[in-house]
Amino acid sequence: MSERSEGVDESMGVPPVIDLNADLGEGFGRWQLTDDDALLSVVTSANVACGFHAGDPATMRRVCELAAERGVVIGAQVSYRDLAGFGRRAMDVPPDELAAEITYQIGALEVFARAAGARVGYVKPHGALYNRCVYDEEQARAVVDGIRAVGGGLPVLGLPGSRLHEAAARAQLPVVGEAFADRAYTPEGTLVPRREAGAVVHDPDEVVKRALGMARDQAVTARDGRRVAVTARSLCLHGDTPGAADLARRVRSELTTAGVHVRSFV
Amino acid sequence: MSERSEGVDESMGVPPVIDLNADLGEGFGRWQLTDDDALLSVVTSANVACGFHAGDPATMRRVCELAAERGVVIGAQVSYRDLAGFGRRAMDVPPDELAAEITYQIGALEVFARAAGARVGYVKPHGALYNRCVYDEEQARAVVDGIRAVGGGLPVLGLPGSRLHEAAARAQLPVVGEAFADRAYTPEGTLVPRREAGAVVHDPDEVVKRALGMARDQAVTARDGRRVAVTARSLCLHGDTPGAADLARRVRSELTTAGVHVRSFV
Amino acid sequence: MSERSEGVDESMGVPPVIDLNADLGEGFGRWQLTDDDALLSVVTSANVACGFHAGDPATMRRVCELAAERGVVIGAQVSYRDLAGFGRRAMDVPPDELAAEITYQIGALEVFARAAGARVGYVKPHGALYNRCVYDEEQARAVVDGIRAVGGGLPVLGLPGSRLHEAAARAQLPVVGEAFADRAYTPEGTLVPRREAGAVVHDPDEVVKRALGMARDQAVTARDGRRVAVTARSLCLHGDTPGAADLARRVRSELTTAGVHVRSFV
Amino acid sequence: MSERSEGVDESMGVPPVIDLNADLGEGFGRWQLTDDDALLSVVTSANVACGFHAGDPATMRRVCELAAERGVVIGAQVSYRDLAGFGRRAMDVPPDELAAEITYQIGALEVFARAAGARVGYVKPHGALYNRCVYDEEQARAVVDGIRAVGGGLPVLGLPGSRLHEAAARAQLPVVGEAFADRAYTPEGTLVPRREAGAVVHDPDEVVKRALGMARDQAVTARDGRRVAVTARSLCLHGDTPGAADLARRVRSELTTAGVHVRSFV
Repeated sequence: MSERSEGVDESMGVPPVIDLNADLGEGFGRWQLTDDDALLSVVTSANVACGFHAGDPATMRRVCELAAERGVVIGAQVSYRDLAGFGRRAMDVPPDELAAEITYQIGALEVFARAAGARVGYVKPHGALYNRCVYDEEQARAVVDGIRAVGGGLPVLGLPGSRLHEAAARAQLPVVGEAFADRAYTPEGTLVPRREAGAVVHDPDEVVKRALGMARDQAVTARDGRRVAVTARSLCLHGDTPGAADLARRVRSELTTAGVHVRSFV
Repeated sequence: MSERSEGVDESMGVPPVIDLNADLGEGFGRWQLTDDDALLSVVTSANVACGFHAGDPATMRRVCELAAERGVVIGAQVSYRDLAGFGRRAMDVPPDELAAEITYQIGALEVFARAAGARVGYVKPHGALYNRCVYDEEQARAVVDGIRAVGGGLPVLGLPGSRLHEAAARAQLPVVGEAFADRAYTPEGTLVPRREAGAVVHDPDEVVKRALGMARDQAVTARDGRRVAVTARSLCLHGDTPGAADLARRVRSELTTAGVHVRSFV
Repeated sequence: MSERSEGVDESMGVPPVIDLNADLGEGFGRWQLTDDDALLSVVTSANVACGFHAGDPATMRRVCELAAERGVVIGAQVSYRDLAGFGRRAMDVPPDELAAEITYQIGALEVFARAAGARVGYVKPHGALYNRCVYDEEQARAVVDGIRAVGGGLPVLGLPGSRLHEAAARAQLPVVGEAFADRAYTPEGTLVPRREAGAVVHDPDEVVKRALGMARDQAVTARDGRRVAVTARSLCLHGDTPGAADLARRVRSELTTAGVHVRSFV
Repeated sequence: MSERSEGVDESMGVPPVIDLNADLGEGFGRWQLTDDDALLSVVTSANVACGFHAGDPATMRRVCELAAERGVVIGAQVSYRDLAGFGRRAMDVPPDELAAEITYQIGALEVFARAAGARVGYVKPHGALYNRCVYDEEQARAVVDGIRAVGGGLPVLGLPGSRLHEAAARAQLPVVGEAFADRAYTPEGTLVPRREAGAVVHDPDEVVKRALGMARDQAVTARDGRRVAVTARSLCLHGDTPGAADLARRVRSELTTAGVHVRSFV
């Protein structure tokens, strides 16, 4: 059953296990965005902004200290260099430069993780880079090159089936798939694009229910009503919306009640 | 002889030894400034810009690769966050933020050094931060705090007698003093401020002669004609002036001819 | 009575008049800070961030449109180039560069004001630049040079008695003094530095009372209990604290009730 | 002959006229790139960088002063916000934000032009934005929206037949076509993409010859040897290559000798 090693197998009596990840440290200087303190009490993996779309050095240090203190795994949330656009503007960065920019960001975070007695446990691209690496092979390879330069075989958290995961696997880097409890899925199991109506699930009850289904049954109801398989070792929770921390707490609590083990993938 | 511990003692028959350091990688994207390739064939220590006053990630990677290939020690040339001012504008950065900014820059460079099979061997502040840390105890301490967070007891290259060196010594970090062959000195052994006439020595012959005196005799002729002691384990060569690489080569060649060992301090 | 033209003269039966100014548009991209919409219903002068410490172009456009729609005068809130420090880090910018940076910011705002059918009515330095120009003659002159290059004789809003106001007056630019209802004053009529205890008045009732005294009686109770004169044609209200808009509304309402005319100085 | 309204008609005895434009002020702080002084003695239109891909405020001021002094028309060379990539990385900027960014840049330049006794005479997008607006209708419209917000009906300098020119024409903005003497053309009259061999003409003699042909005969030899029509009121000269100023001087001199009037299009 090696090909399902990331998933769960209830028939064997093994309880399902899931990781909860969220974007943290996404302020910059005077500006705050994410409720880092509250979310670090809920998630098991912290995608820490590294300064290119958000994340000043003092914030990075503080988030790493809190994460280390609470046993939350620190991940490098790497991005295009774009503070003004919060990393949400896709950019045609030459692969060679993109790889170096990824390496730079991971290195900068690594030293704060180490100073806090921890280490960088994985890498996850942010925003437009995440979306682009779903289909753009060249940029996906550049991101993987940038991760490999760091050494240590860092796992890559991302969308199952993405070019990023393909490139990472080819480079012998572990890949970890994630699902989104607050996003609608197509019958093919892909995300409904944000620009389409109903792409985002706003009802907290529905979000919790979908998180449960994803973690326990590895499935979600697509927008046409069909059940589709969702293979994810991690669930992404959004940290920059009002009430984000409360919703995250509820998701975690109900997962635990339902017998799902909430545990980092590292 | 404790106050001369960094220097040499010719009376014992030990040949004098000196390090040559220069600022490298000070371009940014499309803009180039320093002749990195040529200088990396001359110097023994490379002060590599880390992205805050200059130094994009791709340049940092390339300079680290070249330095590693040629056995040049890589140092982190840390700066205020000031691309527009090239790090030459003193800034009242709160100590806590300054320390984090220093750590961030060293971390970013470290990963490129490691990828090249080398490591960061020392830290040297750049421009206005260098000058400020000569006398500003609070910022000097902040820089040292930022260096300590990285771990590994990195040596601090700077002006002998500076607050930076005092703070580094108190924190058990090795300190390495440097002298400037192309700068005029006062009878007290301090640098003549740049704004004063004659502060910079432009004549190449004179620069070479002063370099020799500093390395071999640990002395230089002050502007009033007196000989003053200059205790330096490293000589700083400027890399951003026309003919910089040629002058550096000549300095190195004449040092060697005169029996001075040109060798890194690490 | 030309020398008191900015003040009021109750003995003549002329009602007191005051301007209310606040910092607006201090978000950047994804990050929001000031409740621009609410405050633009209260203040008569909007100090609009111009992109150097905060204020992206789309925000500048939006704030200018709202201000123009509501008849609020648009002012250029110019700053050091320092997004990471929100313009709160004093910088030793050479006067020539500083002047150009000031001109640049005003120009960028001017075009949005014009597109909204309005114009830039005044200039007010932000944060560390404001504080520095209270005592630093060189920078004050540079700021004034930068304002003069724009043309049109723009008024300079600032601290009465500051070097900035002196330099502006020498350059024939109108000066407008402001006072702070939520800051403690010394018996000499200057602000109690922020680092001292009691420097900021947090009690809303007290803030309202002080605003009234400043506008109606041109006086405030200093921290030693004495009444001191405060000559201000404008009151600065803070826009980046929780409840800022509510407090501003209350100040304006009570000023009006007390017979003070709330009106721009332009 | 309305479709050739920008060109010339030798049959009527009217001498041909051409504008020479070059990118100027493309340094940033410590970094210099273009030989502004020399080129401002040759060109008739200066595309001045406005701070987003290059161009610090002090440089903008200086270039505007020199241009005004020598009667060179000042144009706003607007770009994506991308100092690290020199504006050469295409970006998916939302139209609303892009328009505001364009307006911001023109406004910032306008005030320096005015201070120098001149004005902004036209707009030309830079680098990746230029290339994208050749075919991307949405971004082309956004750029035009940003220009229109400035008012004054500024001419748009760009590639004949581009989406940018179409959008500008629809918005009643004057359009001015340019040609490139150092670029190879296809038999269809479009530019050979830079990534293809032979895309750039390096031989100075050939560049001069092509410039003459474009200005006098409105034609150029395509890479297959055929003559193709090139309708351009302006020739773009590159300013960031070694010997750029010398080549520009030669082009101008030979144009004049050949009876072509070198004159701005404004």
